[in-house]
Amino acid sequence: MSQTSFDILVLGGGPGGYVAALRAAQLGLSVAVVEARHLGGICLNWGCIPTKALLRASEINHLLHDLDGYGFKAEGVSFDFKKIIARSRAVSKQLSAGVAHLLKKAKVPVFEGFGKLDGTTSDGKRKVLISPDGKAPFTLTARHVILATGARARTLPGLEPDGKLVWSYREALVPEELPKRLLVIGSGAIGTEFASFYRNMGSEVTLVEAAPRILPVEDEEISAIAHKEFEKQGIRILTGANIGAPKKSGSTVTLRVEAGGKAEDITVDTVISAVGIVGNVENIGLEGTKIQVDRTHVVTDEFCRTGEAGVYAIGDLAGAPWLAHKASHEAVLCVEAIAGKHVHPLDSTKIPGCTYCRPQIASVGYTEAKAKEAGYSVKIGKFPLLANGKALAMGETTGLIKTVFDSKTGELLGAHMIGAEVTEMIQGYVIARTGELTEAELIETVFPHPTISESMHEAVLAAYGGALHF
Amino acid sequence: MSQTSFDILVLGGGPGGYVAALRAAQLGLSVAVVEARHLGGICLNWGCIPTKALLRASEINHLLHDLDGYGFKAEGVSFDFKKIIARSRAVSKQLSAGVAHLLKKAKVPVFEGFGKLDGTTSDGKRKVLISPDGKAPFTLTARHVILATGARARTLPGLEPDGKLVWSYREALVPEELPKRLLVIGSGAIGTEFASFYRNMGSEVTLVEAAPRILPVEDEEISAIAHKEFEKQGIRILTGANIGAPKKSGSTVTLRVEAGGKAEDITVDTVISAVGIVGNVENIGLEGTKIQVDRTHVVTDEFCRTGEAGVYAIGDLAGAPWLAHKASHEAVLCVEAIAGKHVHPLDSTKIPGCTYCRPQIASVGYTEAKAKEAGYSVKIGKFPLLANGKALAMGETTGLIKTVFDSKTGELLGAHMIGAEVTEMIQGYVIARTGELTEAELIETVFPHPTISESMHEAVLAAYGGALHF
Repeated sequence: MSQTSFDILVLGGGPGGYVAALRAAQLGLSVAVVEARHLGGICLNWGCIPTKALLRASEINHLLHDLDGYGFKAEGVSFDFKKIIARSRAVSKQLSAGVAHLLKKAKVPVFEGFGKLDGTTSDGKRKVLISPDGKAPFTLTARHVILATGARARTLPGLEPDGKLVWSYREALVPEELPKRLLVIGSGAIGTEFASFYRNMGSEVTLVEAAPRILPVEDEEISAIAHKEFEKQGIRILTGANIGAPKKSGSTVTLRVEAGGKAEDITVDTVISAVGIVGNVENIGLEGTKIQVDRTHVVTDEFCRTGEAGVYAIGDLAGAPWLAHKASHEAVLCVEAIAGKHVHPLDSTKIPGCTYCRPQIASVGYTEAKAKEAGYSVKIGKFPLLANGKALAMGETTGLIKTVFDSKTGELLGAHMIGAEVTEMIQGYVIARTGELTEAELIETVFPHPTISESMHEAVLAAYGGALHF
Repeated sequence: MSQTSFDILVLGGGPGGYVAALRAAQLGLSVAVVEARHLGGICLNWGCIPTKALLRASEINHLLHDLDGYGFKAEGVSFDFKKIIARSRAVSKQLSAGVAHLLKKAKVPVFEGFGKLDGTTSDGKRKVLISPDGKAPFTLTARHVILATGARARTLPGLEPDGKLVWSYREALVPEELPKRLLVIGSGAIGTEFASFYRNMGSEVTLVEAAPRILPVEDEEISAIAHKEFEKQGIRILTGANIGAPKKSGSTVTLRVEAGGKAEDITVDTVISAVGIVGNVENIGLEGTKIQVDRTHVVTDEFCRTGEAGVYAIGDLAGAPWLAHKASHEAVLCVEAIAGKHVHPLDSTKIPGCTYCRPQIASVGYTEAKAKEAGYSVKIGKFPLLANGKALAMGETTGLIKTVFDSKTGELLGAHMIGAEVTEMIQGYVIARTGELTEAELIETVFPHPTISESMHEAVLAAYGGALHF
């Protein structure tokens, strides 16, 4: 008989869940993971990872149509769409297997099935009922239960994913073929990434956003540059848009879109609905507990504790920002607190966000507007990539780096980037924000030449009247 | 009659010189630049910048021969070598014009000609004799003279660049055609970059290094990975090598190379000599002054002051590390000190170094060996890119991140990276080192997922027994 009682049980094997288990094992706690579908969760199987494999493909396709400027020629450029999708799936599969391997190496048992809180034992342990597919349910017990069941796509009425005409991110990752005409609803990170991928692969793309601008959580200037650049790439953008009920025919779907005081019917082969996500709060035994649910997420305190002693929630289930790296840091924090270590609560203004479109977008902390709203007196620094030598040498001059400083203390409040490789660069500003560096230390930092990252330095200098190359 | 007396005169318009002038102008000082050849110096015209344009070409060529794995096809792939070189020159030209524009905007006069220290005026100003090409010399005066005349390639006897059989970096940037067989002498950053570029474009390349390993200033493990990877790409590497006198024929050159107890004659079409650089200390009027020259560099103190009051030296002229970003930071420091600002001396262990080969290499601070030599007790963290999701998604899994911490204080002593985009990523570690962050703050930092930069986090966790994904 295998072990049935643990220090910690983790419900969900996504980036929050499996990292919680790995960290618990490192700290010598007995821990198990309960996962119904696939280790690695949405992120690894249906999100961050496979989309990055697709991003690579769209970058390659773009380059193959832009070879002349670099002195290259190629004829008969083509791609095998099924092969591109298959590669993306293979990457996900390999990483999911990697997670299984890591858990195995750490001697963490994985129970396949849905887990559900099911009261307590007489000695105060939490009971969790596991329902495996097609097998008899059974009960495990643990001192601590970490809920990490994640989230799923929010659906609009009439736009439930049907696998043919309407896709969520999940269907959008495994298309049978490239849609000729595509409508993407929602211009957050997910919608924008798909719009960018499909456009770069050759689809006609219309991007529809209810807010007055695309990428509404990003700084306004970044958003404006992205808008202009996407339009240049041939993406049609409708902001401040309202959508009517869809009319489906056999092979097309028509949506009435009202934007800018005009209404029009847009007929496409496929709609991608990317209008946010909802937490998986159902069927995990929250009913009758003191665990509170706000809209679709579990309410937690700064140490990921729910209203029920010994029950924690992390990751997407615990609310925004819906990011894998937020989930995994919460996982570590939650487990370390359980283990009695001193931990610092997560500060959402120190969590970066990335959008893997072309050009890439990355940011951390306060936008200029949010900083002002919060009462800060700010200094703003900006540096366009057009003035950066490496960007010019690489042929990647579209972009801007923008910094927001507290003019009183010199604290870096936020940083906003659009351009080549900014998703790999943003960590420098995150390190600066986490280490509470001021402008003085950033100015003193020697950024290597020639790199695009020098623009990060210039954007700091610019805030203090010392930009050298612009 | 234009102005002839300044607060500061800068001899040399490279990244040290022109940045000194721009910063001086920002601080309200009157300043002029004296430059004989081209604004932007070696870096911009014959170094960092044009080589990055070539790097882009070699990356593209590599990708075009590796399309199948990504689901793409192209026939008749070819390149126009002259066009690739022309693009590289155009980028340099554009940036050099950019420097001229920046100086003009800052109202900094540029005097064309060679400048030479020429005594002092009766009121204690420095006299500088300017000799323009084909015109009469004239004299300018200044309270402060900053020497920023840079450096040039060191030549080995019999291997003086001849533009045909033997190239320095300068000739290697403007070849008439792609050499079929190439021998590169010296595996520092310059030699390695050219070896990588020409190999990726299709040349047969042999890389010869006198030291026991290539990239001898990098951490041994990084050096070993580069060695293995270069060999996989078809570069022949001979380390611990001695070179005999070259024998030139009409169109080939033969060198006797002794390595590993064996001697052989290697015949190639072209030799690139990349065996270091020497400072341009000649003909700038150092004779009879108190300015000391050590080998080929001007001796300075931590504020760039020479032995002669009011005369400073920065950049390559002032010695290693021979890096443009070291020159520009010295420029700012030197000018700010002249302006009476409080400045911190540069710490060479906080200056990153990058090598733009494939895969890229970047590092800052102490190698493991140097840290131990310096008496530190160290903690070492390592993370291979093979275990990174984004690297896998991008198809770029070759690489390693290595961190060196002081086990007593947790100070990040050094970081060493090889892999895709590491030259853009290293700044995060430089910021950490400059801000004197410890492992605790780096562990707390939320690196965005999915990025290759997450491996920087894992390499910190690994040093403290907490790596999650390996």
